[in-house]
Amino acid sequence: MKNKFANRMSKTPRSFVREILKVSENPEIISFAGGLPNPESFPVESISKAVHHVLSKNGSEALQYSTTEGYRPLREYISKRYDSQGLKVDPDEILITNGSQQCLDLVGKVFLNKKDTVVMESPTYLAAIQAFNLYEPVFKTVPLMEDGIDLEKLEEVLKNENPKLFYAVTNFHNPTGITYSEKKRKKLAALLKEYDTILVEDNPYGEIRFMGENILPVKSWLDDGILFGSFSKIVSPGMRLGWIVAKEEVMDKLITVKQASDLHSNYFTQRIVYQYLYTNPVDDHIQKIRNLYKKKRDMMISMMNEYFPPEIHYTHPEGGMFIWVTLPEGISSMELFDMALKENVAFVPGEAFFVDGSGKNTMRLNFTNSDDENIQKGIKSLGKSIKELLAKLKAV
Amino acid sequence: MKNKFANRMSKTPRSFVREILKVSENPEIISFAGGLPNPESFPVESISKAVHHVLSKNGSEALQYSTTEGYRPLREYISKRYDSQGLKVDPDEILITNGSQQCLDLVGKVFLNKKDTVVMESPTYLAAIQAFNLYEPVFKTVPLMEDGIDLEKLEEVLKNENPKLFYAVTNFHNPTGITYSEKKRKKLAALLKEYDTILVEDNPYGEIRFMGENILPVKSWLDDGILFGSFSKIVSPGMRLGWIVAKEEVMDKLITVKQASDLHSNYFTQRIVYQYLYTNPVDDHIQKIRNLYKKKRDMMISMMNEYFPPEIHYTHPEGGMFIWVTLPEGISSMELFDMALKENVAFVPGEAFFVDGSGKNTMRLNFTNSDDENIQKGIKSLGKSIKELLAKLKAV
Repeated sequence: MKNKFANRMSKTPRSFVREILKVSENPEIISFAGGLPNPESFPVESISKAVHHVLSKNGSEALQYSTTEGYRPLREYISKRYDSQGLKVDPDEILITNGSQQCLDLVGKVFLNKKDTVVMESPTYLAAIQAFNLYEPVFKTVPLMEDGIDLEKLEEVLKNENPKLFYAVTNFHNPTGITYSEKKRKKLAALLKEYDTILVEDNPYGEIRFMGENILPVKSWLDDGILFGSFSKIVSPGMRLGWIVAKEEVMDKLITVKQASDLHSNYFTQRIVYQYLYTNPVDDHIQKIRNLYKKKRDMMISMMNEYFPPEIHYTHPEGGMFIWVTLPEGISSMELFDMALKENVAFVPGEAFFVDGSGKNTMRLNFTNSDDENIQKGIKSLGKSIKELLAKLKAV
Repeated sequence: MKNKFANRMSKTPRSFVREILKVSENPEIISFAGGLPNPESFPVESISKAVHHVLSKNGSEALQYSTTEGYRPLREYISKRYDSQGLKVDPDEILITNGSQQCLDLVGKVFLNKKDTVVMESPTYLAAIQAFNLYEPVFKTVPLMEDGIDLEKLEEVLKNENPKLFYAVTNFHNPTGITYSEKKRKKLAALLKEYDTILVEDNPYGEIRFMGENILPVKSWLDDGILFGSFSKIVSPGMRLGWIVAKEEVMDKLITVKQASDLHSNYFTQRIVYQYLYTNPVDDHIQKIRNLYKKKRDMMISMMNEYFPPEIHYTHPEGGMFIWVTLPEGISSMELFDMALKENVAFVPGEAFFVDGSGKNTMRLNFTNSDDENIQKGIKSLGKSIKELLAKLKAV
């Protein structure tokens, strides 16, 4: 059978993070590895009411096939929410998908020929590499700074490589937690326009800002840009509902490939999520999530301040789910991972997020899905292991 | 933007059937066009109870991210059901997907290089052409007979073209309604084995047999074969849940591409469907659907016997949702479509289901989603239009 697989499969190994997540499923492990929302944040009771309403009023309709584009009132809701945030998006420019992960696959299908160039942030969202990889592009990477992509290096790549797509997570980046500044967003938009490269802006965490000021998506300065959104972090990830925003010409192609890929996203759940959003004070709910995550982020940062040696650098995210840690050169986060696991603590070694195998001294910590006690115990334990590794390094 | 699209997009026009379905959404139209289950068959109340159970007992868990493979008890349920039908499938050989449409996409991703040969039945399921098309294969077609594929012509193609995949809907075929005989299934399995071509067996209607004897899937004589299943016709299509059965080596690749495509299928709905299946007499429910559809099929056939001229040939399906009509050579079903629409009757002209543009004198009629009165009125009206066309043809 082996020689029957398509060539693209040889470039797509099973995810390393997936294996780590399996390890960290052991309930004895304090896991900062996953990217899971805190289940406390799921509005179980309100969802239950929404389901009851949908099934009792429109049961047969909600269980039937539906349109590829997605449930129109839900798309109208998303459009209105963008509007309230300062971004004009027509409901017809929105396609409902299976989470933002599927947006990546659909964009890959619509745009990527083999050997097309895609510019990725370095580091970047691992599953974006996997999704695009199936269309066999060439990846070019540009380093990420504290306020967004390195524009000088980006311009070099745009000039020399004529890339088709530029992929970015602009708010509370996965894995680094950083956010693009407004200044950088504007310049980025101008640059992409100048070199005719398509913006693919992924924004799954945008609503989870717990500090600082909201900034408009890069797309608001670049009308042709493609923008992803998701209900995973504000309602439920298990429901796998996200969306993609694009102008008509691109939307037409996206709908064609969405239809070929799975006809349409789960309509029953679209109806439920709409009903939930329509009848509940969603902003209050999101504010609760923000408060919860800010507390956990503050707790983790304060523990890191206390227990990590001063040589260790880490980001101070204003939202989202992740803190990014940079260890001194020469310290391997894979080695730290093995040590930590013996102490029942897990995280994701950072090299998984680099296309080029660099980042061996980096790591990603998730702060949203552990209770306070585990954050305290886990960071303290990590600090101890890091100090041991540092001592070993200095002794050499 | 146009010159940015991937080459594959030029081969994938928006579906013609899609446009027809839009026309037939008009409530004044008697539509035999769609492929919709009858909403009477949806177990709304039992689903409601299942949701209540899942959310009250395991709400937070059901709304969280889950594994790519799918909810294990659901996979075990599918495995046991196959077992009771005489097919041995391990739960680890089952991956939950977004309906069987996604199975097509995942198989395309895992197996198809550009210009690989895929053998399709002629006619075949339209959306399978669309799904595979995105991987830019070369299609070879083999005519379908009343008892399945034309084995002689298939062997020619297998011998001369070295195809990678053979795609078939073996029960109550879409669009023709025919079913592969057991004899043909065994010979087909032997032939595919001999020429080392992978079986892709799509079986969305298998449970909806209302006459005749159940026959095992072709896969039961060809262990390496890939088999699709779906809950769309027995529980709800709006929930978009299906599955793919494959041996370990292939399953490993399927899981990798499923993860890259959308992480996993809607977990909330997987839990609900499992709960529904676990607590309800599913066989009674399926029997109700069979009885309902048999009545409608019988009604349509008896109206066709009465109102269609004797030159018209049509299939007598033992299950599923479609009857396939062959008009005399020289009569165009597109012309009939235009005439019928003026009388507020819609169907799908058959050429949409042929890769090579043939089948201009064929059409597909859906019998599951119209009430008795509309079946009577619609077929009577179609018969009248057909007679007019015949008279015109004879007058020439």
